[in-house]
Amino acid sequence: MFTVTVRDHMMVAHSFRGEVFGPAQRLHGATYVVDASFSGPRLDDDGLLVDIGRATTLLADVLARLNYRNLDDEDDFAGQNTSTEMLARVVADRLAERVRSGELGPAAVGGLEKIVVTLHESHVAWASFERTLAPR
Amino acid sequence: MFTVTVRDHMMVAHSFRGEVFGPAQRLHGATYVVDASFSGPRLDDDGLLVDIGRATTLLADVLARLNYRNLDDEDDFAGQNTSTEMLARVVADRLAERVRSGELGPAAVGGLEKIVVTLHESHVAWASFERTLAPR
Amino acid sequence: MFTVTVRDHMMVAHSFRGEVFGPAQRLHGATYVVDASFSGPRLDDDGLLVDIGRATTLLADVLARLNYRNLDDEDDFAGQNTSTEMLARVVADRLAERVRSGELGPAAVGGLEKIVVTLHESHVAWASFERTLAPR
Amino acid sequence: MFTVTVRDHMMVAHSFRGEVFGPAQRLHGATYVVDASFSGPRLDDDGLLVDIGRATTLLADVLARLNYRNLDDEDDFAGQNTSTEMLARVVADRLAERVRSGELGPAAVGGLEKIVVTLHESHVAWASFERTLAPR
Amino acid sequence: MFTVTVRDHMMVAHSFRGEVFGPAQRLHGATYVVDASFSGPRLDDDGLLVDIGRATTLLADVLARLNYRNLDDEDDFAGQNTSTEMLARVVADRLAERVRSGELGPAAVGGLEKIVVTLHESHVAWASFERTLAPR
Amino acid sequence: MFTVTVRDHMMVAHSFRGEVFGPAQRLHGATYVVDASFSGPRLDDDGLLVDIGRATTLLADVLARLNYRNLDDEDDFAGQNTSTEMLARVVADRLAERVRSGELGPAAVGGLEKIVVTLHESHVAWASFERTLAPR
Repeated sequence: MFTVTVRDHMMVAHSFRGEVFGPAQRLHGATYVVDASFSGPRLDDDGLLVDIGRATTLLADVLARLNYRNLDDEDDFAGQNTSTEMLARVVADRLAERVRSGELGPAAVGGLEKIVVTLHESHVAWASFERTLAPR
Repeated sequence: MFTVTVRDHMMVAHSFRGEVFGPAQRLHGATYVVDASFSGPRLDDDGLLVDIGRATTLLADVLARLNYRNLDDEDDFAGQNTSTEMLARVVADRLAERVRSGELGPAAVGGLEKIVVTLHESHVAWASFERTLAPR
Repeated sequence: MFTVTVRDHMMVAHSFRGEVFGPAQRLHGATYVVDASFSGPRLDDDGLLVDIGRATTLLADVLARLNYRNLDDEDDFAGQNTSTEMLARVVADRLAERVRSGELGPAAVGGLEKIVVTLHESHVAWASFERTLAPR
Repeated sequence: MFTVTVRDHMMVAHSFRGEVFGPAQRLHGATYVVDASFSGPRLDDDGLLVDIGRATTLLADVLARLNYRNLDDEDDFAGQNTSTEMLARVVADRLAERVRSGELGPAAVGGLEKIVVTLHESHVAWASFERTLAPR
Repeated sequence: MFTVTVRDHMMVAHSFRGEVFGPAQRLHGATYVVDASFSGPRLDDDGLLVDIGRATTLLADVLARLNYRNLDDEDDFAGQNTSTEMLARVVADRLAERVRSGELGPAAVGGLEKIVVTLHESHVAWASFERTLAPR
Repeated sequence: MFTVTVRDHMMVAHSFRGEVFGPAQRLHGATYVVDASFSGPRLDDDGLLVDIGRATTLLADVLARLNYRNLDDEDDFAGQNTSTEMLARVVADRLAERVRSGELGPAAVGGLEKIVVTLHESHVAWASFERTLAPR
């Protein structure tokens, strides 16, 4: 199995509801350094699983819709805590949808089997979401 | 599958028995930068797999029982080489026991499926132990 | 010259005023991984420039006054852009004041000559402020 | 499951054929920071999965056959693009062959089940190949 | 004194002449992860030493003239070994020229005093060049 | 000014005397990831400040005299606390002596002006010693 990973980041504000969060119930923020990993069993005729340049552009485009925002104001997350693990799933799901739409090329539509997205919220904590990329 | 990871460290002395270890047969030591990863399929009502603050406290507590010690003097390791991979298992097993006792909350008791512990012994070598967290 | 550095982090929300900031004019946030460096020419009788444990506690205490906050609401920063470089100075100045008050011990009051604080806002950008620690 | 990882690096030149590569069609180069991970279910009588010193030597030896070379001139890669993911497989396959030949000791021949090799081509992109180590 | 640093990378091929270089006399290559630091004593009215976005764009533009190239073929380096420390000076000098031309804004022309450029050639070796930015 | 840095590591045991050290008074240990930086104003005819290979060998040789040892048993440190900052000085002084003996080549004897040694004791704490390399 091959895996290609690209890294980018986003900077957001948000707050959490629930006593478990303690001071993080206040409006605060985070830089998430985001690693997106794409996995599949075969390389294409160019010797690639996915083109790193194209994967970098796709990740940047997905993050641009979250970057420099207060997530408390985003309709997509109404009534939800935008925890690191929840945001990892959001990014993974959005990447998966675009891969299936062909944005990483036609070979990737059926050729990729798995996406893992990791959001590093600091040098001492991070969270991931792993999902399959089954063809529709 | 979601995964949440927290990082801490411990500083121990030890020696190894066996010719394979060469100069590491002498009493020496290591800083282990320790990553503890908890995995499970679902988020709780707060949008969390595990609370990062709680996981950080639990890891610190487990490491405190090893930290600033000469492992050659610990009864728990009598007759054993405290290799990096062996210590990764020790930390993972102790975390698993406490998770099952409810120290990461009731949702984690049945909700977590896997623990991976990685001990970085330097910038060029590390070791992990991965285990399931089957409910008793 | 000796230097001792300790690392911690804080998570804040803020916005910027000025066209130069583009989308960062919106309310967003950042994790700042913070490195505080203390420099001086001599070690004390214990062989230390500063005690790493004590320096860690001091840095955590200074960051606690900023952590999990919306800096736009803090009186201390009214009318100012809380840029990474500006916040580096804030943390450095607050550390300096406490060092001079003896919070790193009496030897540090006259013995430390310089503080450098670096705030990492992502894996690709960071800013520092360096200042002297002249005795009053 | 235990995993032991060691890190080394190599510095190579190469070029790529195919429009997808854009400016990387020109002769250029890369430092690959290489992580080789060995996994297996049991520790030997010394408390080891594999000896880190021995694994380090094995990885260095495999990389020496690629290091400081123009991969476009290597017969092994004639007609192929030496992409990061393709080179990860090359390193993994060569490590696997040597493990089966006993170069990590007799216990590793049947005891190791998996090898993962990751090549970091920069601070923002890396690729891996994962393979089994089935006994012959 | 304030310092702002931005990070990017470039991937080049080259060879070295001289027995001291051993196998590096062969055509090979490197990824250089490049940190460019700009220092000055004062912040502007926006609270900035330099705009991180603008500094990132400037560094990318300077590196684009070196990236994906065989430095042995570049007229600028004819008869010279493109060692890591020599390339650090090239990048620093090119950045300095553009800062003085106003590409980081008018405040930076007289306000910046120092540039440091660090090229990381691997996880275990890097080189820097530090220079003043005296006004012409 | 040019600077070349190489990285290696050592693994030692030791204990500290003095109440300030708390649990670190017990015999414990540390991995020190060691960065040795050499600075000077000019490159030699090969385009080098110092040969990275030669600097790497020199650092490894200096660390070999400390590595895999209990520093409490070393005559060189009798009656002293082997703090991180104190050990940074030891490594820097030993490197300086060897540079002046010509071990980095004749050009380095007069050409290098400064050595900085940093010992990272964990991912959250490190210490440095900086010294001149004045010709004898």
